[in-house]
Parts: sequence; C-alpha cells; structure tokens
Amino acid sequence: MTPDEFRQAGHELIDWIADYRADLEQRPVRASVKPGDVRSQFSRTPPESPRNPEDLLRELEQIIVPGITQVQHPMHYGWFPSNASLASTLGDIASSGLGTLGISWESCPALTEVEEVVCDWMRQLMGLSGQWEGCIQDTASTACLTALLIARERTSDYSESRGGLQAEDRPLLVYTTEEAHSSVVKAALLAGFGRDNLRLVSMDPGTRAMSVRALADQIESDLADSAVPCAVVASIGSTGVTAFDPLAEIARITAAHAIWLHVDAAMAGSAMLLPEYRHLWEGVEVADSIAWNPHKWMGTILDCSLFYVRDVQHLVRVMSTNPSYLRSSVDNEVKQYRDWGVPLGRRFRALKLWYHLSIDGIESIRDRLRRDLDNAQWFASQVSQSEHWRVLAPVHLQTVCIRHEPPGLTAEALDHHTLAWVNTINQSGDAFMSPSQLDGYWMVRVSIGVEATTRNHVENLWKLIQRNASDQLILAEKN
Amino acid sequence: MTPDEFRQAGHELIDWIADYRADLEQRPVRASVKPGDVRSQFSRTPPESPRNPEDLLRELEQIIVPGITQVQHPMHYGWFPSNASLASTLGDIASSGLGTLGISWESCPALTEVEEVVCDWMRQLMGLSGQWEGCIQDTASTACLTALLIARERTSDYSESRGGLQAEDRPLLVYTTEEAHSSVVKAALLAGFGRDNLRLVSMDPGTRAMSVRALADQIESDLADSAVPCAVVASIGSTGVTAFDPLAEIARITAAHAIWLHVDAAMAGSAMLLPEYRHLWEGVEVADSIAWNPHKWMGTILDCSLFYVRDVQHLVRVMSTNPSYLRSSVDNEVKQYRDWGVPLGRRFRALKLWYHLSIDGIESIRDRLRRDLDNAQWFASQVSQSEHWRVLAPVHLQTVCIRHEPPGLTAEALDHHTLAWVNTINQSGDAFMSPSQLDGYWMVRVSIGVEATTRNHVENLWKLIQRNASDQLILAEKN
Repeated sequence: MTPDEFRQAGHELIDWIADYRADLEQRPVRASVKPGDVRSQFSRTPPESPRNPEDLLRELEQIIVPGITQVQHPMHYGWFPSNASLASTLGDIASSGLGTLGISWESCPALTEVEEVVCDWMRQLMGLSGQWEGCIQDTASTACLTALLIARERTSDYSESRGGLQAEDRPLLVYTTEEAHSSVVKAALLAGFGRDNLRLVSMDPGTRAMSVRALADQIESDLADSAVPCAVVASIGSTGVTAFDPLAEIARITAAHAIWLHVDAAMAGSAMLLPEYRHLWEGVEVADSIAWNPHKWMGTILDCSLFYVRDVQHLVRVMSTNPSYLRSSVDNEVKQYRDWGVPLGRRFRALKLWYHLSIDGIESIRDRLRRDLDNAQWFASQVSQSEHWRVLAPVHLQTVCIRHEPPGLTAEALDHHTLAWVNTINQSGDAFMSPSQLDGYWMVRVSIGVEATTRNHVENLWKLIQRNASDQLILAEKN
Repeated sequence: MTPDEFRQAGHELIDWIADYRADLEQRPVRASVKPGDVRSQFSRTPPESPRNPEDLLRELEQIIVPGITQVQHPMHYGWFPSNASLASTLGDIASSGLGTLGISWESCPALTEVEEVVCDWMRQLMGLSGQWEGCIQDTASTACLTALLIARERTSDYSESRGGLQAEDRPLLVYTTEEAHSSVVKAALLAGFGRDNLRLVSMDPGTRAMSVRALADQIESDLADSAVPCAVVASIGSTGVTAFDPLAEIARITAAHAIWLHVDAAMAGSAMLLPEYRHLWEGVEVADSIAWNPHKWMGTILDCSLFYVRDVQHLVRVMSTNPSYLRSSVDNEVKQYRDWGVPLGRRFRALKLWYHLSIDGIESIRDRLRRDLDNAQWFASQVSQSEHWRVLAPVHLQTVCIRHEPPGLTAEALDHHTLAWVNTINQSGDAFMSPSQLDGYWMVRVSIGVEATTRNHVENLWKLIQRNASDQLILAEKN
C-alpha cells in the first residue's frame, strides 16, 4: 500500500469512525451474535489475491460491528467503564502512523522521554509525591505480575541470580483477599508462589475490605511457622463491590515487616485525580508499587496501565537485560523502559495520554468523573428508597451493586429472578450490566461511567430495570 | 472531543501521516537528539487548559519526529526490521477507532473470532499442521515467559496449585545457548528457575548453533544429579548472527525426556512464509510452543507477536481465571483469550493482521521477503570478495555480520576501528546499523529488510561503508 493509497483509505476510515462514534447510541449495546457467527463469515483460508480497503471497510461494518459489545455506548454499565476518548484515539492513531520501535532509548528517544513526561504529569495529577516513577504497561494484570516478581526478588535477596525461587528454604507468602481481582491470584501463581502460599485474608463482611487485624494475626502466625511474608496486594476499588482495603493501616504492618505492598487501584486510580477522594487511599506513599488504568474510567484508550514504583533501581535490577546490540554511548544518562517490565519492545503509547490530557484537558476530565459520581449517588438513592430493592455495598465511587429482593422467594428462586431480569435487559440490547456473585449469590453490578452516559441515560436505566424486574416476577408467577 | 472535531483533526492527521511516510527518506535515519532534548521541550507540569489538535500536530513534527530513529527508513539496517506496513497501520487505526474491549468473548466476540481466523491463516501460510492453535501477544519476550511458565507447570505437575515452584524438591532446569535472545534468560529468571538452573549449552563455533551432543550430555549429567530438565528454548534465527539451532535433533531429545521445547523464531518466522526456507526449522512439529513476530520483517505493525501451542488445554489450565463477573452462558463454546497469556484485557490486534494480509496480499509480501534475501546475498558476496573484509557468520536470511579487518591492527585497535566507522555512519544519519559483539569482539550487523529498501539502497550502503572504513583508517594513521 502506497502513502497515497493510504491517504485515500485513511480519509474514508476517519469518516467512518467519526460516523460510527456519533451514531453509537442507535446500535444495540450488546453483540447479538452467537459463537462462530463472526468466524463463519471469513474464509477459512487466507486471501489469495489483494483486496481493496473499501471492501474491508464494508466488512468492518457488516461483519465486525455486529460482533462488538459497545462499551462506548451510553447505556453500557457492564464490567468497568472502558472509555476510548476520541482525543486519546487520535493520539493512538498518531502512534500507529509514526510506526516507531521502542526497544531502547536510542531506537526512539521521543518514545522514552514523552513516556517519562506524561507519567510524571499523571503522578502530579494524582497528588503522588516525587518519590514515584512510572511507566506505561499494557494492563494491571501485567503490572501486578511485575510487582510480585520484584517483591519475590527483594524478599529473597535476588534469588534469580542463584538457585531461583525453587532454591529458597522457607516458603515466601503473598497476602490479599478473596475480593481482589482475579489477576492477583493469577500473578501469584505465575510468579511461582503456589496456592498454598497465598493467604486470602478475612474481610470486614459489610465492606469486604481487608481486615487489618486478620492480616496482622496471619503474618504473626506465618512468622511463627518460619514462613516468610513477601507481599501484600491491597485492592483500592475492587472489581466486585469497589471495596477499599485500609491502606494506611496495612502500610504500617508491611513497613514494619519489610513486606512489599502493591496497590491495585486499576479502577479507582481515576478517582485519585479528584483531591476530595484521595483519603480513600491514604497511606499510599508508604506502598512499594501502584498500578492503575487510565484506560478505564478516565478514558485513555486501551491499552494504558500506569505502573509506579518507589525504588526504580530495584525494579531495573530484576528486569534488566543488556545485550551488546542494544548498547549505546548514552546508556548511563537515559531510561531504558525495556528494563521496567516483561516486554522488550513497546509502542509509542505515551502519545495517547499526551493527546488525551492536552486536548480534553484535566478539568473537563475531572468534571466528567464528578458527574458520574453524582449519577451513581442518585441511582443508589433511587434503588435504596424503592421497596424490595437493595444496594448491597457502600457506593464509594461509581459502581452500584443492587438486587431486587421481592418477598417470599427462596435463595435459589432469588438467584433465578436476578439472572432473569438482568439477562433479559442485556439480551435486548437496550442496556448492559454485569451479573456478579456476592457471598455466593447473584447480584447486579451497575457500573456508571461511560463518557456518553448522562443523568438522562441513568434515569432510563432505572426505569428499564424496574420494569423488567417486575415483568419477570409476573412471568414467574404465570409459570 | 466530539466526533466532528475528531473528523477534522483525523483528516489532518491522516494527511500528515501520508506525507510523513512518503518523505521519510529525506529525514536522517537516526535521531540526533541528546538525552533530555525531547523531554525539556515539554512543560514539567500537566497542561492546565485544553489545547487544539493543530498545536499537537505541529509539536509532533517539531519535537517528536526529530526524536525518532526512523526504522521505516530505507537506509535503516539496525537491529531487526520493524516494518509498519501502511495496510497494517490502517487496520491498527480501525482498531483504535472502534474502541473495543477484549476481556472475554462476550465483551467483543468479533475481537476473539477474528483473532482465531487470522492466527489460523498465519498457521497455514507457514506450513504448520492443524495441531497448532495460536493467539497474538505483544512481544516474543512475553511469549517466551508464557512458554517457560507453562513448561514449569507441566514438568512440576501443576505445582502452582500446591506449594508452587518453591516447594519442588529437585531443581527444574532450562536449556538454551549464549546466542539466544536476552529475553530467554530474562524469562527463565522471572519464571523463578534461577541462574544456577539455566544451562547455556555449548555451540558449534562456526555457526553458533546449539551443539546437540552437548545438549544430550548436559541432560544426562543433570539427570544423574537428580535434577529435572524442564525446557529447551531453541533459537530459529538468533538476534546476533541469525543462528539456527538444529531443531529436528533437539526435538528428538526433548521428546524422549518429555522436556518442553519452545521455538523462538521471533525474526525468522517471517522466512517460514517461504516454502523453500522451511527446512531451516525442520522438526518444529514436535515442539511444544512457537513464537514469532509478524511485527518484524513481515511488517504487521508493532505489537503483533504470534504464539502457537500444541496443547491449548494445558496452556489454559495454567493461565485461566474465571471470576463470576466475566461468566456468560456460552463459555463452553468459545475461546477466552485472557486464558492464553498474562494480560486480562486485549486490543483488537487481529485487525492489523487482517488488513495487512488482505490489502497487501501474501504474494506481494513473499516477493518482498525474497527481494531482501537476494539483497543480503548480493551484499554478503560484495563484502566477502573485498580485500580485508569478512562476513563472520553464515547468511541464512537477510542479516549479514561483517567486519573490516585491515592488517596490522591489534584486537583492541580493530575494535576501535569497527566502532569508529559504524558510529560515524550512524551519527551522520545517512544509514544505521547495529554494532554488536561476537566472541567478545565488535562487529557490525547489517540487517536488510525494511519495506522501502531496494537494491539501490543496499548498493549505496556498501559504498558508504567502504568509504567510511577507509576514511577511519586514514584518520587513525594521522593521529
């Protein structure tokens, strides 16, 4: 494809994208395709002769789009917001257009230095002190694995340079709660700790926040057993019910025992852009690492996960490689981001943060976050004031966990009812929410925060929910 | 930013990208900035008020571009090719525009199923049998870590579900060579094996390919010591000198001992699109996992690393998570790519492969690869026919390792001479190559394969090299 062919196809694609984003509300929220529907529309063998971009654009519209659950749709309340602001999308396009290679400072000095700049801007915007240095990783899962790997190496005094984790005499332990994101357990297992050495610390039953007393007791007991506490992963805004582990108190314990403290603020990090919410992670300055995702609520297009550490030298010592073909004369004066995580090569992801912050501006981003927080409070108050409706967990941010609990239903029938009304709505394409389990029973997570979602949309959602829950009851009585 | 603002700024950006790619040859190959030059042109504090896209486009041109080493430039011969074909760039832009979220099949069925389709297309195009299933990862480094993690779990019979690697009685071992990519050692250390349990097997001194005899002897000796051979990582086209480990013979040994065999074909995978080159990885069907990067020579824009395994069930068992909020009624009928690697969320990366294969067509890609192979043979023959010039390793593909060895120089003076001529050229911006060490001495890797590089460019490079090497000799004599 020549630059001129690219120019023409690019203009057509930009128009298509602009139309697509403008008209998103007219589309069903949830993909209505069945397994294999998309795949079966593609040839099983690779294309034999070149095709033109117009054909692909048509297939994008006809085959791909029906297979997309529209997370940019104003009636999307599923999982967590995954906003792809158009400003950051533009920055992402610039990154693709430049076609750069990030494997060393020398391979693209701008890629490294703009990443330094925007990570430091973000640090300032969250009110973190200058002791933190950051980089962009793909996801908080990867960042959590990175954190547990460097925790493992700190606690074991760099066992990687000797016999590895497998040569350690006493078991190293990781502490978190059942409420932590699934990636935390996954990271602990991948890092080699093993499930037996993963401590799921008890929680306060009302808030599902980690019990500090239980943590302290568990650590004492493990120490008495000659095990070695290595890392605590604290959830700051959990996925299930937006639980906040008590960071300041946890940090006192981890500091006393030289345990690595990783803060998983994947979702709630966005809230820390608002000074009035920072009390929710008080104590963060004593932690060792933090991960949070601008690609969620804040809206810098996926993938953009920020990973901050206090001790960069330690991180780099664990992760560094220095093959001769990547050396240059300025190595001592520059950052080599390949030594800050697993991948060697990286895209120019900093551009999307630069575009997002520069074009939208931090104040409009903050205004939007506050709008969503207000909407969540309004929605929660509607739910809790309605007969037989319950809000199941404190609404710290923008996610509201609800259940319709009409009288006289067994626990099993209630589960059936919950799944019936939420799945009916989800299947309709009018709105999308995530059914999720809490203490073994189904509830519904309503995660407000799509860029396009206004109060009006939330009001419509609440009407839709009430009508459908009521309809399901009538249907159930008939059967 | 509204869709209409995006439309306008998007058109301007597309024009700028098209011009940028068209005029790339006029720019210096290597970024000429000094450490901090780019950073110092940015405000140290985040932008306070919104800026407009035109300003950013101007800064892209004035601040960012001078800080880019132009890997798309026809005179770029550094590292490995990192082609960002415009067809794949267009697919990448489509992916950004759609703003999808890949965390489960349900979150974007099209994302999952197009990834299935294109990974299978690529499998067919490389002549791999139907026993292989693949996914797209960010880099071969991540794929190698994934391979060693699942190797560790297979050998230890899923130690992750018990006491982890740290509870294993007998040490698990990983085998590779000194010629392997730096990410292999890094992956082994991160996976917890430890440096003492990493065996750098001897190589054939001429080809730097793994010695099968040495591997067999090492394994026998380790077994006699009650250690447990776990994985062999074979290099198919190493970074240093494009060495090919003898896969068929290695595979016979690994199969006999149930050792995991991971094939790192990050660079040379592109060559397997050409049937006449597949003898170079004969035996691959007996391996357990393969990684290779379409984002290198083939030219699907970074990041696009293919990871194939034979036993998907094993991969998924090690990597899977299944939180309630990600469950859906069709889970048993669909692929969940979150269980194929470390990250939970993924971009719609399959679009860039779809665009690339569809628009450019496989035959034009193959023609280009063959052109580069011819150019490398021509270049190597020029070098080897010239007095005092040497080609230092077999030219299996498109990378030629060379040294100018004028008589009468000590080893130290020769190193000085090599670095002098290559750095002079690199600093001039006229061409870029990678100085690299071989057996402790400096040589120069000339890696041919940028999409824009024609025979004419390679001829100019050879003239440039000869002139500069000769000039440096004269200069050295004067001093």
